[in-house]
Order: sequence, then structure tokens, then C-alpha cells
Amino acid sequence: MMDGKGIPRAVIERLPRYFRYLGDLRDNHVERISSQDLSVLMQVTASQIRQDLNHFGGFGQQGYGYNVNFLYTEISKILGLDKKHRLILIGAGNLGQALVNYVTFETRGFNIRGIFDIDPKKQGLLIRNIPVLPMEELQSFIRDNDIDIAVLTVPKSEAVGIAELLVKYGIRGIWNFAHTDLNVPKDVVTVNVHLYDSLLNLSYQINEREE
Amino acid sequence: MMDGKGIPRAVIERLPRYFRYLGDLRDNHVERISSQDLSVLMQVTASQIRQDLNHFGGFGQQGYGYNVNFLYTEISKILGLDKKHRLILIGAGNLGQALVNYVTFETRGFNIRGIFDIDPKKQGLLIRNIPVLPMEELQSFIRDNDIDIAVLTVPKSEAVGIAELLVKYGIRGIWNFAHTDLNVPKDVVTVNVHLYDSLLNLSYQINEREE
Repeated sequence: MMDGKGIPRAVIERLPRYFRYLGDLRDNHVERISSQDLSVLMQVTASQIRQDLNHFGGFGQQGYGYNVNFLYTEISKILGLDKKHRLILIGAGNLGQALVNYVTFETRGFNIRGIFDIDPKKQGLLIRNIPVLPMEELQSFIRDNDIDIAVLTVPKSEAVGIAELLVKYGIRGIWNFAHTDLNVPKDVVTVNVHLYDSLLNLSYQINEREE
Repeated sequence: MMDGKGIPRAVIERLPRYFRYLGDLRDNHVERISSQDLSVLMQVTASQIRQDLNHFGGFGQQGYGYNVNFLYTEISKILGLDKKHRLILIGAGNLGQALVNYVTFETRGFNIRGIFDIDPKKQGLLIRNIPVLPMEELQSFIRDNDIDIAVLTVPKSEAVGIAELLVKYGIRGIWNFAHTDLNVPKDVVTVNVHLYDSLLNLSYQINEREE
């Protein structure tokens, strides 16, 4: 699978991890690092690092290594972090509330502007001072607040229907925590966090080592 | 990357998704399905489905398709779901509390037996009737309750140290939500849920489509 620029999906999925390690290096005042040293740190081969970063023009200099701050900043732009994102969250259950309270996202340009829930008992509730609104206000809220991302933390049975609404109302990306895949048009991005799938992966690996 | 049985890591990561679709089919009383129909549903090629399932002995019959219930049951065994897992959760913050309240896991053989937190103010707190215990009791609790999986929802700065303790105390698998990679011995399984990495993946794809 390639994305629109011919960059393999696997490379893109590794990009946030590069960003994380470079951020740590930067916080520790490391100014430059060779692909070899980065490879030891990240436990991937130096050649994979060079190949991956070459997709974005490469940022290393022979015999010098990578300039940490420069590479960090460039990757942050590639990841779209030079722009602010305006989010809504739909589904104010336990997981939804936990994500609203996960302020780390907030400090990094992902601002949760509104929370929605289908349950009238939850409407009016304040989570980190953000009121829970009724679904009837979804369309106007997305339009008036220029929302680009919806976080979906609703039960599986509701997720597909709500995703259709979100697409109709012009959302650009859906961060989907519901335990189902969404079938949205190609111009709408979805990234799934299937927690149960991840737990099954763990269970598989434990089981496999026991035998 | 292969696992111990020579099954590519990518296939294993797809297994929970097969399991999810087969579970839905079973719930909808579908008795058998061809790789072709499953391919349309899952939006992967029929040949990939056949190749993937062949790693586990294959379960299809030419001209008949897959027996849904049989395949579901076989995959559930492969995933280790015929055994019960006993979990502890470390870090009773928002995300940790949300996961404890996510009872779906519980009904599927993943029982949370204990919750731990470093903060004395949280100790004694009840989350879904499970008391939050002090870290001093971690070792004896793991041993006495035959705990095999630890869910790690602590800040990045604490995660590596706590993972070392968990390994020392004999834990088999770590489900890691801390925003860092853990460096554990090969016989301990870790599966990471890096929420921020996932959000960055979404941000990247939105950004890339805008250009």
C-alpha cells in the first residue's frame, strides 16, 4: 500500500516513532546523531532508517549524521503539526472521557472543541469544562467551528451510522475507537485504534511462547 | 519479522481482524463464506485471505468456502482465548480507569484482578469494585494471583522502571499504553498502544491529502 505520494504505508506508520525518538533526543540536548546510533536506540537497522528518511528527501549528511532539531522540525511538518487541528469527540463514555482528559494531545495542536453523546442524560455534562452536546447540533457545530477531526468512542452498533453523518457533514478525518471498520469515501481519513485486536495480539504471542 | 513458528508478524496482526469479522458473521447466523465474499467484506484480496489462513493449516474446502463457526473457534484457540488471562493494571489515571471499566475484555476471558498506583492518594480507591493497591504489594500479588498480563497506563517517565519490575516478578506479557518503547527480554511479550503515534498518523494523512 502506497499513499498519494508513493510513500509506502509502512514508512508512514513508522514516522511517528522517529518523531518520538527525535523529540526525546532533542529534550536531552543531543544535537546530532548518526543513523548507526539511532539504529541502536530504535532497534531497527541503520539501512532502514536511511531508506525511510530518504522518502522525505533524506536529511542526513555523510560523515556528520542527522541534525536532530532540523529532522524533528521537518518530520513535525510532514506530520502536519505545523497546523492546528480542531476535534470533536463523539461518545462520552469511560474511554471518551479519558481521551478528553488526556491533555497531552491538547498541548500539541489537537484541540477538542466539542463533545457529543446520543444519551440525553449525558448532555449538559461538563468534561474538562467542555459541555456534552446533543447529536442534533453536530452538523452546525462542525461547520461553525471548522472541525476537521472526529474522535469516535461509541459502541460498534452506532459507529457506522455516525461515521456516515460525519462524512456528510464534511469531516476530514476519523479517529475510530469503535470495534468495527468504517466504510468511508477515500477522501476521508480513518485511523483505527482497535483495543481488543491489540489485546488479542498480546494473547496470541503469550500463547505461542507457552507451547 | 517472523514469530517462533515462522508465521509473519503481519499475518498475526491481521488475525484479530479475521476473528472480528467471523464473530460478526457468526452472530448473524452465517454458516459458511467463500474467500471471495470474505474478501469483499474485509476489503482485502481473496488470495491474501487464503494465504493468511494457510499458515494455520487452512480451513477452507474447495468449492465450499469456510465454515464460519469452525474457523472462528479455531482462530480463537490460536489467539489463546481458550485459556483465561489474569491481568493487573498499573496506573489508575483517566485512561487506566477507562480500561478497567471497559468490561468487554472481562467477558472475553481477560480478568482484571488488581490495580496498582504509585500515588498514595489513589490507594484504597475502588474502581469497578477493584481496590487500588500500593506498589509494595506488586510482587506478592503477581505471585499469589498467578497474574500473566500487566496493563501499563503510567506516564512515560515511570514506564521503563516499572516494566523492569514486572519482568523481575515474572509477568508474561505487557500491554503498554505509555508513550515509550519498553526494553524487555525476548520471553516477555509487549504490545504497544501508542495513542499519540496513531493520532499523528491521522494528522499526516489529512495533511498529505490537503496538498
